[in-house]
Amino acid sequence: MRQPLSVIAFDADDTLWVNEPNYRNAEKELERILQNYVDIQSITENLYKVEMKNLSLFGYGAKGFTISMIETAIELSGKRITAREIEQIISIGKSVMNNPIELLPNVRKVVIHLSQICKLMLITKGDLFDQESKIARSGLSEFFKYVEIVSEKDEATYFKILKKHRIECHKFLMVGNSLKSDILPILNIGSKAVHIPYHTTWIHENVEQPDNRKKYYELPDIIELPDLIKNSFEIIE
Amino acid sequence: MRQPLSVIAFDADDTLWVNEPNYRNAEKELERILQNYVDIQSITENLYKVEMKNLSLFGYGAKGFTISMIETAIELSGKRITAREIEQIISIGKSVMNNPIELLPNVRKVVIHLSQICKLMLITKGDLFDQESKIARSGLSEFFKYVEIVSEKDEATYFKILKKHRIECHKFLMVGNSLKSDILPILNIGSKAVHIPYHTTWIHENVEQPDNRKKYYELPDIIELPDLIKNSFEIIE
Repeated sequence: MRQPLSVIAFDADDTLWVNEPNYRNAEKELERILQNYVDIQSITENLYKVEMKNLSLFGYGAKGFTISMIETAIELSGKRITAREIEQIISIGKSVMNNPIELLPNVRKVVIHLSQICKLMLITKGDLFDQESKIARSGLSEFFKYVEIVSEKDEATYFKILKKHRIECHKFLMVGNSLKSDILPILNIGSKAVHIPYHTTWIHENVEQPDNRKKYYELPDIIELPDLIKNSFEIIE
Repeated sequence: MRQPLSVIAFDADDTLWVNEPNYRNAEKELERILQNYVDIQSITENLYKVEMKNLSLFGYGAKGFTISMIETAIELSGKRITAREIEQIISIGKSVMNNPIELLPNVRKVVIHLSQICKLMLITKGDLFDQESKIARSGLSEFFKYVEIVSEKDEATYFKILKKHRIECHKFLMVGNSLKSDILPILNIGSKAVHIPYHTTWIHENVEQPDNRKKYYELPDIIELPDLIKNSFEIIE
């Protein structure tokens, strides 16, 4: 029996377009600068520690990431990093903010197709200004009936969004690459979820493979989403 | 004849709580650090130039402000500023993000009173995470039926908010300290506005005294708002 469905929601970063690799490239560039000061293979762990320390003050996003890169550089260089190098780090951070939007394969045609048969929502976490700019540059915004930019993706946030738009939990499907942010909280509020893993995931989004694995769908590529929708769901108002 | 009114909206920064003075204090501290490098009375103009250059990439808010302070310091010091001093600048920026919320005089009682007779909305511009945190810390969030955090306050933004909540323009009143952001665009969409000036205004918010001055109300203190509402408006659904 097909399940009722009234809204399909998509995560954006690393579900619709490339994001995490931009951050990892920035990290590589920071590593190159820091090679002058410290004998270290990877700064990932140090940077992550600084980011987590700052998370409650900065939230997610490229501006906070830039400040955390500077703090990591000051710390790992024993305060010897130069103004010129910090200028380079700021410029690395600005590239992350300014990167052209690269849609993932098949995203555009799947989104256009699904927008013709169901109401679509975009739910993305991070910096308001940054995310609005990315959505505008993606060329996809016209296909989404609702766009929600949130500071955290947890049960309470999803519940508030559904309540606001008067969407029943069991008729809501979320599609995303992060088990932690896009799938588990969605299952916990009684909605449906499709996990489309991406090759690069930020450590912060890593979680144990959940027990309720059978309760969500997993697809290797978004191209398979329309068939899944067609076979398993009935689209209703 | 009293005019119909269904929602009263408030700006937050420098209308409900102290904001701009925190930024100006940060600027003073940055000036003190830069005295080691440059003979300058005020860095306001230099910092503002950097902020405007970054605006289309950063939007508004304390994280972008922090990065702009660092860039200004690198520039004004001729790239001689030290890592230790940049660390201090980051810490100045973090104080801006972390400042305790100081409600302006009479705000709490006026907001509580008005929330009992009319639907209230909060519309604030800036960093999503930062603004959510400030609203939570203000202790006022329960009195607002709607909270909107936006990246820009222009006609299009206000129009979208009113449309979303199905509020008729002529029944909407905005209260704020910025002529540019809170008053002029509101008049342009046919809504009502109350200007409550604040002693400190960011240069970016300065505009010429508008021709349509008579079309909005001006109050010296929020304490006078309930009487204005009572005498000039009729609250309806």
